[in-house]
Amino acid sequence: MDIAIVLYEGFTALDAIGPYEVLAQLPDAAIRFVSYEKGPVRADTGALTVLATHAFDEVKRADILLVPGGPGSDNAEQDAAVLDFVRRIDATTRWTTSVCSGSLVLGAAGLLRGLRATSHWMVLDRLRPYGAEPTEERVVEQGKIVTAAGVSSGIDMALRLVQRIAGDDFAQGIQLGIEYDPQPPFDAGSPRKAPEHVVGMIRATFEPLMAARRPAPRT
Amino acid sequence: MDIAIVLYEGFTALDAIGPYEVLAQLPDAAIRFVSYEKGPVRADTGALTVLATHAFDEVKRADILLVPGGPGSDNAEQDAAVLDFVRRIDATTRWTTSVCSGSLVLGAAGLLRGLRATSHWMVLDRLRPYGAEPTEERVVEQGKIVTAAGVSSGIDMALRLVQRIAGDDFAQGIQLGIEYDPQPPFDAGSPRKAPEHVVGMIRATFEPLMAARRPAPRT
Repeated sequence: MDIAIVLYEGFTALDAIGPYEVLAQLPDAAIRFVSYEKGPVRADTGALTVLATHAFDEVKRADILLVPGGPGSDNAEQDAAVLDFVRRIDATTRWTTSVCSGSLVLGAAGLLRGLRATSHWMVLDRLRPYGAEPTEERVVEQGKIVTAAGVSSGIDMALRLVQRIAGDDFAQGIQLGIEYDPQPPFDAGSPRKAPEHVVGMIRATFEPLMAARRPAPRT
Repeated sequence: MDIAIVLYEGFTALDAIGPYEVLAQLPDAAIRFVSYEKGPVRADTGALTVLATHAFDEVKRADILLVPGGPGSDNAEQDAAVLDFVRRIDATTRWTTSVCSGSLVLGAAGLLRGLRATSHWMVLDRLRPYGAEPTEERVVEQGKIVTAAGVSSGIDMALRLVQRIAGDDFAQGIQLGIEYDPQPPFDAGSPRKAPEHVVGMIRATFEPLMAARRPAPRT
């Protein structure tokens, strides 16, 4: 089971590492972290650097392709090297997946036309110019294209993929192995559940930043 | 807010990256990934390599110390360089924390004597020789020592820490930012919830491996 995880500067680490931790336990999993070239790729905080194991041109196919999100996805959306890689590998996959704003990269690559899809709640509307129908679900399956909502949702998505690929027992075994029995101290993980003033606080903090760096959508 | 995250060969990536993603959003967070020396440290799957930003001897203090778990913790438990670092930094912290079998490293450093503590469910009993009282809770706070259960529990622990440090609104804001609204496809994340045959399957797979490499406990 060949799994290719795309990395680019400014990715959000948990978008990639959540599903990695689950998918790495599939039978015969071979995980590749793929970027422009082999070597260090910095996550969005600047504090974490992960090594890409392969360059885009070294990877010819994958059973599962995963594109994480993060502030850096704004550049990835406009970057021919990333988009060409995504399109080229998608032609070989059993599953093409994204977490968070990674779905905007799938959209920019032309893979979401006419499909329902999700993304981080703050950028959901940006799926529309790519011909996708934004959908407020945590994991959206449309044939082989599977998009997940913000950051931590990749764990849920990956468990679903394992369920499809290796069955219920195996997926439950992985869930038990990573002791994924979530007990957050609040029920504030979606804009429909968080207190209104908290949603407002997050919007006020991030929307100006996002507007400032928003690229013109590729249609 | 200085945050030191210990890395060693064979750590489980999500143990470290889950809490990192949450804690990095604390006001003035300065995250350091610390290991024997600066540079690449391989996670347990062999597929993921993270760069340590600092060597043990470069870090003098931290507000939060976090020790992740993973198969490599068996060696870390017996390694003077790791244990000295943990003891030295613990003397300066506001919070000393662990995820998964990272609590065995805290135990080996002598920090859990007389305290309730948790760990991955499969190694919970190994806390006892260190004078700790194994506790089947997801997050266990004992003064400034906070231990979390297996792998994914570090996300819940970090949100609790943020709540203590920066208040309810801030913690909810981070939860909303990482869209942590868990929807696993099964309710199988603890041995009390997973089907019995799945618990048996995981035990049968991992216990022989763990027994083979179990070090003599340091008391």
